[in-house]
Amino acid sequence: MDVRGYIEANSGEYFAALKQWLAIPSVSADPARSDDVRRSAQWLAARLRATGFPVAEVWETGGADGRDGAGLPAVFAQWPAADPAAPVVLVYGHHDVQPAEPLEEWHSAPFQPAERDGQLLARGASDDKGQVLFHDLGVRACLAAGAAAARSAPPVTLKLLIEGEEESGSPHLADLLRRERDRLAADVIVVTDTSMWSADVPSMCVGMRGLFDAQIDLTGPELDLHSGSFGGAVPNPLHALAALLAGLHDADDRVTLPGFYDKVAPLSSRERELIGRLPFGEKQWLVTAGNSRAISGEAGYGTLERLWARPTAEINGMWGGYTGPGGKTIIPSRAHAKVSFRLVANQEPADVAAALRAYVAAATPPGIEATVTPHGPGVRPAFSPTDSPAVAAGRRAMERAFGREVLFTREGGSGPEADLTDILAAPLVFLGVGLDEDRVHAPNEKVLMALLLKGAEAAAYLWDELAAAAPEITAGRAGSG
Amino acid sequence: MDVRGYIEANSGEYFAALKQWLAIPSVSADPARSDDVRRSAQWLAARLRATGFPVAEVWETGGADGRDGAGLPAVFAQWPAADPAAPVVLVYGHHDVQPAEPLEEWHSAPFQPAERDGQLLARGASDDKGQVLFHDLGVRACLAAGAAAARSAPPVTLKLLIEGEEESGSPHLADLLRRERDRLAADVIVVTDTSMWSADVPSMCVGMRGLFDAQIDLTGPELDLHSGSFGGAVPNPLHALAALLAGLHDADDRVTLPGFYDKVAPLSSRERELIGRLPFGEKQWLVTAGNSRAISGEAGYGTLERLWARPTAEINGMWGGYTGPGGKTIIPSRAHAKVSFRLVANQEPADVAAALRAYVAAATPPGIEATVTPHGPGVRPAFSPTDSPAVAAGRRAMERAFGREVLFTREGGSGPEADLTDILAAPLVFLGVGLDEDRVHAPNEKVLMALLLKGAEAAAYLWDELAAAAPEITAGRAGSG
Repeated sequence: MDVRGYIEANSGEYFAALKQWLAIPSVSADPARSDDVRRSAQWLAARLRATGFPVAEVWETGGADGRDGAGLPAVFAQWPAADPAAPVVLVYGHHDVQPAEPLEEWHSAPFQPAERDGQLLARGASDDKGQVLFHDLGVRACLAAGAAAARSAPPVTLKLLIEGEEESGSPHLADLLRRERDRLAADVIVVTDTSMWSADVPSMCVGMRGLFDAQIDLTGPELDLHSGSFGGAVPNPLHALAALLAGLHDADDRVTLPGFYDKVAPLSSRERELIGRLPFGEKQWLVTAGNSRAISGEAGYGTLERLWARPTAEINGMWGGYTGPGGKTIIPSRAHAKVSFRLVANQEPADVAAALRAYVAAATPPGIEATVTPHGPGVRPAFSPTDSPAVAAGRRAMERAFGREVLFTREGGSGPEADLTDILAAPLVFLGVGLDEDRVHAPNEKVLMALLLKGAEAAAYLWDELAAAAPEITAGRAGSG
Repeated sequence: MDVRGYIEANSGEYFAALKQWLAIPSVSADPARSDDVRRSAQWLAARLRATGFPVAEVWETGGADGRDGAGLPAVFAQWPAADPAAPVVLVYGHHDVQPAEPLEEWHSAPFQPAERDGQLLARGASDDKGQVLFHDLGVRACLAAGAAAARSAPPVTLKLLIEGEEESGSPHLADLLRRERDRLAADVIVVTDTSMWSADVPSMCVGMRGLFDAQIDLTGPELDLHSGSFGGAVPNPLHALAALLAGLHDADDRVTLPGFYDKVAPLSSRERELIGRLPFGEKQWLVTAGNSRAISGEAGYGTLERLWARPTAEINGMWGGYTGPGGKTIIPSRAHAKVSFRLVANQEPADVAAALRAYVAAATPPGIEATVTPHGPGVRPAFSPTDSPAVAAGRRAMERAFGREVLFTREGGSGPEADLTDILAAPLVFLGVGLDEDRVHAPNEKVLMALLLKGAEAAAYLWDELAAAAPEITAGRAGSG
C-alpha cells in the first residue's frame, strides 16, 4: 500500500480523532477556558504517544522560570530517526483556537464539529488543529507505506512543538524557545499554520510580514475648552493628530518615517516570477476585501507585492473630543491614535519604534505634548530561503501530493515564525493547506477535508524528501561543516 | 434720591427676589425640568407685573403654530413710554439655565443660592437670571429717581423678551421672532447676556462670532479588515480622514475652504484701537485656557483679534477603528469627525456648508465615500454698529454707572443675536456685567453682586440716554424718513 492508499484507508479514523479534539474549546484568549487548553494539550500528547512518538510531553509556559503554568501549555513530541545522521525536523503549529463569538452567527455549534459537502465545520478545523493533526496521520502513513515502509522510526528525527498561545500573540514562545533550545534543535523548521492560494492552485508560503504597533497620545489644554471662547488661539490636539497621521504617507503612499525603507529589499526575480503566475483577479479580491471600492497603495507595485513584500503604515484607531450625537463645540484636551506598521525584508521593529518616536517628536507643534507607547516589542518579518534544499524538498513533497506545480505566496500578516528561525537558527519551510476562504478567526470556520488529507500526504513525502537530501539539509549543522 | 441711591436702598429686596427665582431649576436641556422652566417664566411675568409693566405674558413656543407648548416658554413684557415718539427698546435675555451637573463639584447646592464675599453663588446667578433681573431693578430706579423721576412710565417704550431655550440652542426663537415681529418691533435691541473684560475694566461687547458645525463620515470597506491581509492595498478611511482634516488649514493656520475669507472684513481702526487698550496678559490668558502651553493661530493676528474677529475651523471630535486597550491591527470600515467653524463679518453658514461639502468631495480619495451632515442651519455673526447713536448711548450709560471709560470687546462664541437683529431689523447694544471668571456653564457659577447693581444703574441711565437721543435713535424707523 502506498502513502496515498494508507491515508485514504485511514481517513475515517483520522477525522474521528480530529472531531474529538475539535470538541475541546481551547480558546487561549478566554481565561475561563484555560482548563480546556490544558485538556487539549493532554489530548494531543496522548494521541502522539498512541501513534508511536516515544516522547510526547505537555510543556507549561510563563511565570518566572517558564514552568509554573502562568501561561498556557504547549505540546512537545519527538521521534528519533534510526540513523543519527538523518535530518532533524521541528514541526511548529498550535492547538489553541480563536474565540467563537459571535455565537449567533454560526450555522452549527462551533465546538460540535459537523461535516457538510466535503467540509468539516468547527472552530479550529483549519486554524490550526486540522492541520496539526495531519502530521500525525502523515507520520503513520510514512511508517506504514512509502520509502520507510515497515520501519519503526521515521526517516528523519521528527519533533513537534504545538503551541497553546498562538491566538493570544505567543507571549511566552520566545522564552520557551530559548529555554528548550537544545531539545528543540533542528535542521529545518516546518511551519504548519498557513494557507494556499486556492484548492486548485497549491502553493507554499515563503514569507510573513513583521509588525510594530503603538499608541500615540497627544495632550493640549488640561481640560476641554469652549471653541467659541478659545478657538483659533490655542493648539487643538485633534488638529495636531490629523496632521501628524496625514504626514505618515507621501503623495505616492510611501511611508515617510526617516530611514523606513533602508532595510527593505526587493523581491528576488524568481519569487516575483512565481508570484506573477498566480491567477490574481482584482474584482474578486476587492469582494474579499470587504467589498472595498478601490485598490490603493504604494506607487509602482502591484497588489500582491504591496500585500506581501512592501511595508505599510496603517492607522488602526483614532479618537478624541466629542463623539456623541449632535454637536459640541469644544477644543478637546486629548487626542489618541493606534498605528501599526507591517515590516518586510530586514526591517527591525526597534528601528521603526525609534523612527516613529523621532517623527512624532518632530511633527508635534508647540503647546502639544506627545507620547508614543509601543504595544509590545513587535515581530520581525520571517522568510523561507526560497533557493534552499529544504524549500525545494517541501515543494517536491507538495507537488507529489497535489500532482501539479506548487507556486510561491506570502502572507501579509505576522506570527511567531521569526522567533522560531532566529532563536533555533534553522530555515523555515511552510507546509500548510488552509484556504483564505476557511473563515479562520470568523464564525463558521471550515476546512476542505480533502486538503487535510493532501497535507498528510505531503508531510509523509516531505520526511522522505528531506532524508534523501540529508547531506545538503544537515550541511548547516554546527560542527558538521 | 438719585438712581444709584435708589438701587442701593433697594438692593436687599432685589437680591431676595433673585434668590427666589434662582431656586427654580429652569434647566431647558432636561425634559424632566420643563415644568420648572414654565414656573420660572411665570415667576418672572408676575415680578414684572408687580413692578408695573402693563403687559407681562408667558409666550409658548414650538409646535406647528408655535403656540402649543412643544417648546419652552419665553416671557414678553411691555411698558409704553408716555411719549409715543419715544424710542422703542427691546431687551433680550433668557431665564433658562445650564444643567448643574456634575453636582458633586459644587461647594453649595446649585439651586439654593448662597452669598459669599460679595458674590452670589447659584446656577444662573450670572447667566442669565441675575442680569435679566437687574433690568427690573433698573426700571424701578429709572421711574423712582433720575430724569424720569415720579413719572408713571419709562422714558422709552420698554419691551422685554426673555427666552426659555437659550441654553438649548434657541431652537424656536427665530420662529417666535417672525411670528411676533409686530409686537417685538423696536428701534434698539439691548442684549443682556454677555460679560465685561474685568470688574476693573468695564467694557461692552460689540460682536459675536457665527457658527457652522457638521459631522463628516467616511466609509471604506464594508467591514473592518485584517491589516495584515489587506494593509497597504485598500484605502483606509482613517488615513483619508486625517488627510482631509489636516488639509483644512494651511501652514499659516488659515482655513483652506474655497472662498472662506471672501466675506471676512477687517476690524475698523477704531475698534482695533479700543481692543488694543485692553490689558491683555498672555500668561494669565493661557492659564484661563486650561493651562494651554502655547498660543497659536492664524499668522498675522494677535490673540484677541484671532478670538473675536477672525474665523476658525476646529475639529471638535474624531473617532474610528479600534480604541480599546492594547492593539488591534485592523483597517476600519468607517471614520468620523465633528468640525465647527466660527464665522465673522459677513460670512454665511450656508456658504461655509457648501464650501465644506465641496472640499470634502474633492479631498476624498477613490474607494472612500464621504458625507457631510450639518448639525443645524448654523448661526450668523452678530455685531453692534460701533459708530451708531445707540452704542454711543450704551457706552455713556455704562460710563456713568462705572465712572470710567468703557472699552469694546467681542465674544468668540455664538448666540441667537444675529436672528434678533436680522428679523427685527434693529441694531444691537450689548449691556452685560458678567465676568469670564463667573464659571457660567460650570460648577459653582457665581456673580459679583456689586456688578449686578452696576448693571441696574447702567440700564436706568440707558433709558434716559436713548430718550435724550431720540431723533437719532428713531431715525431708522420705517416711514420715519
